Amino acid sequence: MTLYAYWRSTTSYRVRAALNLKGLTYETLPVDLVAGDQHSPDYAALNPGLGVPTLVLDDGTVLTQSLAILDYLDAVAAPRLLPDDPVARAKVMAAAHAVALDIHPVNNLRVLQHLRSIHGASEAETVAWMHHWMDAGFTTVEAIVSDSTPFAFSDAPDLADVCITAQLYNAHRWGLDMTAYPKLTRIEAACLALPAIAAAHPDHQPDAKVTI
Amino acid sequence: MTLYAYWRSTTSYRVRAALNLKGLTYETLPVDLVAGDQHSPDYAALNPGLGVPTLVLDDGTVLTQSLAILDYLDAVAAPRLLPDDPVARAKVMAAAHAVALDIHPVNNLRVLQHLRSIHGASEAETVAWMHHWMDAGFTTVEAIVSDSTPFAFSDAPDLADVCITAQLYNAHRWGLDMTAYPKLTRIEAACLALPAIAAAHPDHQPDAKVTI
Repeated sequence: MTLYAYWRSTTSYRVRAALNLKGLTYETLPVDLVAGDQHSPDYAALNPGLGVPTLVLDDGTVLTQSLAILDYLDAVAAPRLLPDDPVARAKVMAAAHAVALDIHPVNNLRVLQHLRSIHGASEAETVAWMHHWMDAGFTTVEAIVSDSTPFAFSDAPDLADVCITAQLYNAHRWGLDMTAYPKLTRIEAACLALPAIAAAHPDHQPDAKVTI
Repeated sequence: MTLYAYWRSTTSYRVRAALNLKGLTYETLPVDLVAGDQHSPDYAALNPGLGVPTLVLDDGTVLTQSLAILDYLDAVAAPRLLPDDPVARAKVMAAAHAVALDIHPVNNLRVLQHLRSIHGASEAETVAWMHHWMDAGFTTVEAIVSDSTPFAFSDAPDLADVCITAQLYNAHRWGLDMTAYPKLTRIEAACLALPAIAAAHPDHQPDAKVTI
């Protein structure tokens, strides 16, 4: 499999973590979002949404949208990141989506670029925008994850853990104070103690840079 | 079951459509997002994310996040809105997510309110913001849905159809020119020809108002 990804993209991080947890091997092809590589005709033909990640299966099948890729991976390889029980599954998914829908899309690079170019947001205002949506989403997730397990809902990482850990990388990058979110900090520590997730961290990717 | 919903919320519309397609009966309890009902202590205790919809099952189980609710409904009641084949399922999901993640969260009421209050966006700028993200997302979806079936990918409605039809309601509400998206217009027509989806339309809800 080939994963088109950008080191700092939290959606790429999610998918790398799942691939590694499931022991699947893949080649990483970097897409430099800051340089605008996602707009190249070749990449746009592969992924009309002009985002990352894109996963190309060995038979050439092209999968896009990180949560759809994660759903595919969960269908074909163990360990599963979602429980079988429909209610338990929906609960894990709701926590994952409080990050993947309520935080990430609003703080996506292209939204920040639009905020700056159209609405004249300064760097400080852009960071405040990101903090605002992370604080709102993290407050929700902190309220719904377990307080008695190392991971979000159990003794093993699930879809919520993967989404939370990737988003916390972004939170640290932009200097968010995590004091109010001890459960999320605990979850991140449990995840990063796993070699599979640690290896998926942005800093360990082939396109990682010391500074932007 | 009890559905806490707001008539104009496209995430509420998605869940109503699925409930109706599956023939499930439910009571609707309106949550007036414009009046701020989602911030009431009782509702916040039910849904810490302060959003709609919330589905309360007959045993009192509380489910939040529309896509998680839809996943639950698909697990417990036919007809399914996602195929069984993992690749086909991921393809439908990717089209649904190009709406549910790339458009809706960025155009959510609370984001628009923040854009106005913090960044001083005018009414015209707010509408331009919404149009921008709808055009980007609709261009993606138009490129990936089928051009040979009435619905997005087949002869029956799926998760992509439900998300697309709900978002098109919002597009019309804000005057988006749909000329460039003939497939999406075809999908909306096919969906609204089904009594189950037509009954889920915002205008047919108990809290619908003639004007804001």
